[in-house]
Amino acid sequence: MCLSGTLEDKLAATAAAGFDGIEIFEADLVASPWAPAELAARCADLGLSIDLYQPFRDLDSTDADRFARNLRRAERKFDVMAALGTDTVLVCSSVAPDAVDDPDRLAGQLTEAATRAGERGLRIAYEALAWGRHVSTWERSWDAVRRADSPALGLCLDSFHVLSRGGDPAGFAVVPGEKLFFLQLADAPHMDMDVLQWSRHHRLFPGQGAFDLTAFLGHVLAAGYTGPLSLEVFNDVFRQADPARAAVDAMRSLLWLEEGLAVRCPELATTPAPLAPRLSGYAFTELAVDGISGPQVAGALAALGFGHTGQHRSKPVQLWEQGAARVLLNASVVRPSAAGVAEVAAIALESADPGRSAARAEAFRAPVLPRTRGAAEADLSAVAAPDGTQVFFARTGPDGWPADFLPTGTEAGLGAGITAVDHVALTQPFDSFDEAGLFYRAVLGLEPESVTEYAAPFGLVRSRAVTGPDRAVRLALSVSLLRRGEWAPGVPAPQHIAFATDDVVATARALRAAGAPLLAVPANYHDDLDARVDLAPGLLADMRECGLFYDADGRGSYLHLFTEVLGSRVFFEVVQRLDGYDGYGTLNAPVRMAAHRRLRRTAETPAPA
Amino acid sequence: MCLSGTLEDKLAATAAAGFDGIEIFEADLVASPWAPAELAARCADLGLSIDLYQPFRDLDSTDADRFARNLRRAERKFDVMAALGTDTVLVCSSVAPDAVDDPDRLAGQLTEAATRAGERGLRIAYEALAWGRHVSTWERSWDAVRRADSPALGLCLDSFHVLSRGGDPAGFAVVPGEKLFFLQLADAPHMDMDVLQWSRHHRLFPGQGAFDLTAFLGHVLAAGYTGPLSLEVFNDVFRQADPARAAVDAMRSLLWLEEGLAVRCPELATTPAPLAPRLSGYAFTELAVDGISGPQVAGALAALGFGHTGQHRSKPVQLWEQGAARVLLNASVVRPSAAGVAEVAAIALESADPGRSAARAEAFRAPVLPRTRGAAEADLSAVAAPDGTQVFFARTGPDGWPADFLPTGTEAGLGAGITAVDHVALTQPFDSFDEAGLFYRAVLGLEPESVTEYAAPFGLVRSRAVTGPDRAVRLALSVSLLRRGEWAPGVPAPQHIAFATDDVVATARALRAAGAPLLAVPANYHDDLDARVDLAPGLLADMRECGLFYDADGRGSYLHLFTEVLGSRVFFEVVQRLDGYDGYGTLNAPVRMAAHRRLRRTAETPAPA
Repeated sequence: MCLSGTLEDKLAATAAAGFDGIEIFEADLVASPWAPAELAARCADLGLSIDLYQPFRDLDSTDADRFARNLRRAERKFDVMAALGTDTVLVCSSVAPDAVDDPDRLAGQLTEAATRAGERGLRIAYEALAWGRHVSTWERSWDAVRRADSPALGLCLDSFHVLSRGGDPAGFAVVPGEKLFFLQLADAPHMDMDVLQWSRHHRLFPGQGAFDLTAFLGHVLAAGYTGPLSLEVFNDVFRQADPARAAVDAMRSLLWLEEGLAVRCPELATTPAPLAPRLSGYAFTELAVDGISGPQVAGALAALGFGHTGQHRSKPVQLWEQGAARVLLNASVVRPSAAGVAEVAAIALESADPGRSAARAEAFRAPVLPRTRGAAEADLSAVAAPDGTQVFFARTGPDGWPADFLPTGTEAGLGAGITAVDHVALTQPFDSFDEAGLFYRAVLGLEPESVTEYAAPFGLVRSRAVTGPDRAVRLALSVSLLRRGEWAPGVPAPQHIAFATDDVVATARALRAAGAPLLAVPANYHDDLDARVDLAPGLLADMRECGLFYDADGRGSYLHLFTEVLGSRVFFEVVQRLDGYDGYGTLNAPVRMAAHRRLRRTAETPAPA
Repeated sequence: MCLSGTLEDKLAATAAAGFDGIEIFEADLVASPWAPAELAARCADLGLSIDLYQPFRDLDSTDADRFARNLRRAERKFDVMAALGTDTVLVCSSVAPDAVDDPDRLAGQLTEAATRAGERGLRIAYEALAWGRHVSTWERSWDAVRRADSPALGLCLDSFHVLSRGGDPAGFAVVPGEKLFFLQLADAPHMDMDVLQWSRHHRLFPGQGAFDLTAFLGHVLAAGYTGPLSLEVFNDVFRQADPARAAVDAMRSLLWLEEGLAVRCPELATTPAPLAPRLSGYAFTELAVDGISGPQVAGALAALGFGHTGQHRSKPVQLWEQGAARVLLNASVVRPSAAGVAEVAAIALESADPGRSAARAEAFRAPVLPRTRGAAEADLSAVAAPDGTQVFFARTGPDGWPADFLPTGTEAGLGAGITAVDHVALTQPFDSFDEAGLFYRAVLGLEPESVTEYAAPFGLVRSRAVTGPDRAVRLALSVSLLRRGEWAPGVPAPQHIAFATDDVVATARALRAAGAPLLAVPANYHDDLDARVDLAPGLLADMRECGLFYDADGRGSYLHLFTEVLGSRVFFEVVQRLDGYDGYGTLNAPVRMAAHRRLRRTAETPAPA
């Protein structure tokens, strides 16, 4: 149930992503035209073992008549298991409203079921659901297994059920290893909601949520568990997303977990991927432009104080520089039909060891991109991020990528006081927001910050930054809370590059003098700001004059401005961080979006004749 | 915040839908380039009054210093109100974690704020949020207003905040009418979740959820409230849907509420819409087909035992009949590019008074469709349902719509035992599922049944039937829980017509003998059914032989079969209801979907050379 599709779709995706085995959930089997033996043969062909079967619920804690009927049903499912060639069946704690709260009856009924299973060479893994009627903690499930005392009965541990209730995995040490029959892993965000709904809709792959699954897994392994690591992730988005991608995402989550475990519990370590080399900033960002958008973006960069310092030796690519901010305009990669397109094609990260960065990315299943290279050109390895953005690992220096560019004679100055790239903000495709968080975490060693949700003019938006420990690399990812439909009059999937300055007021004045296409901020915004914040004297007047937005966090404040949208979906931001402000001015985004929308509406309105 | 878009989009939608006034929420104003006075002028031009302003939160229950700052902020917002020309400001109960639980301080601070408002001719409507730190019930908000005892201070009542906490609106009788300053209405489904999340994401327009808003409104009016009925509906879908449509949906919800009030409290009644005439069944259902799908659907109908009994006088429309089931195949309405298209174009409902049905539909803002009519043809009024399906009101009889058809000479028999249309199942566009529930409720007088959610192969699906009191008309509406993305390999937005039979086994045998394109049911399905249900002797064998699905509810059982998909997205179902079964076999839908998916996959796979 981690993956979308029919059983056929799921098996193909799982095998292609390199999994060793699967669980079979009854609903998939019932809807399949394959008899169990045929399914087993197909799995064998794909190199997949069937490690667990989940055929029913509410076996136990009931009266004798109903238990007899349940046993009859169980026996029929044991027949299916024989044909599937799997030996472990999951039994969850009962959720029946009339389940009897009687530990002896529970143990007795589990013993009877396990005895029947044992007679057929099968075994039962008993699991406490977090919303079980009477057994809702792993301790109570272990109590039942201990009382039942049958060799064919053991525990199934599920990280969600344990951690969602604040359970302590350190306690697993009391369970003998041979009684740990099965392990299911799922991460989840912290949410203030009914645990059943939380579990059914919002689980995530390890590394995508808020649970400490590395510690959890360490405790399970330390207790002596030797079985498979299975992912049981109920997630509304994954249920309808491309299963081939979701399976790779899932595999990446296990590789990430394996690495974390190797760091924390070296005694349990397998061979880890290469450690993430330090990333010290953006070497460059590359925009794909065309004949319409190219001059528009180039004009804006010039007005922002950038110099056109280089021209690529073999491709129609311009290098623009100011301070340590470098932007490439690439007119070679755009689809011919996409008139006016301007979008972020690539980010190049300054790596202490580009080769090792690339090797790590590949080890974490990042798709490696083919790269055409001219005679005298630097060898840049690139991988594709989940949104399609190319991620390069580079070193900026005389022997590095800048050697691909012939100097134009223009010097890069500090035209308008821009010093570097502060962050790059990328709207993610709806299906891949959580995948992206894990991708940047595992592949680049960036850490996801907390998720912010806000009401934008055209719907709710979810936003999350991934950053390096020293904030040299910041990526701001966002996604609409629901996939956009036909009513989507804003900028489609906007992207922007935010440049840093040490004096945004001076920079803004320089930009205005140069005629940069700055976005106007409504007077109402500054009026409200004045009503709710005590600002330093003169600052409000400067902000009104320069069209600046303001934000503050517990540490410091943030002054920032935006340009208009250039081409299809790109714009620039200029930011000044004061006193260690660590955010992205996210709560100003709705005002910026409304202003961008207004310009589009104006542009679309025909001029009066 | 009921509507998507910037303030400009929202005003246009609200005015077009016929609203008298609006509330202004601070976020919209702050993002707007219009100064408050300019906004007031635009509203006046559109005939909209500004009835309430919501500028901030957490005014009160705080220390003297912070309260002084809050008052300064309030004074600035009073300036805005003067420019807007609105006299009522909303103050919600504080949600600040450090809000002080001191009724005297609360009353004192409210008095001071109200005194300042009163000096400027303004008034404060105080509202208890269901998650307020200390004031979370309307009784506590009334206690605060009573203690404060200021003429410029009164209550704002919000149905969500009262009803989500199980509050009793009968208690409003203790509040003097002149102290009821404002009324906000929102419906909601019953949900087991944190009340803040429930409120922020899942509110609905009146008539779309589970609250008894008619009774609520009756109590408010009986207590002497004379102000506007305002809708405050936070809903993730409405926030990103076309605001013009959502505003009409909102207006329909108020008309529906008005009618309900007129029935329950005639003394409060205004002029109601015409009552819904009884609908006694389906006069016909009409499928749009083309040159590719037409013969395929006709062949299937023939194999299902239908006779081609009539040909339309002026259009390429065939009438097919069996028992009281009538299907029109219309080859005139399909877009030329849509090769193979087959979809439900119209449903015609047997009305006791078609003219009155149509008048009611128009009164409830159903879009009336233009109708081209030939010389001797019946006058059929049609409106468009939210998914675009045409809804006709008809009378079947010699003087009715059948007169439009020239007999072919073929008689309608009971070829395969099909007696009537049991229900029509329509996948709804993502944005209009809740709109559709209210549309059928208000326009046709059908009642929405409870919502079922289930895991289908390509994502979660939500399903809800709307039915007449005698079940003569049943419509099964469904929608994917998330809007479909690129990975959507199932049938796109499937639709089907379910025919009734009194003996589905006999019908199935006749269909098989006639070569009907019946959908195969996996053996695993029947094996599982056998394991979990005690079926009557012989029934399981019949079900396996005939490819029948099974379901049961508290009353009876349901045997049903499906055909393959015909053309782009239509198929047929044949059903037998036993012992008053009242459902739709919804939980079998995933198996049916997987089988349909499998056929598509097979069809798409090129045959070996």
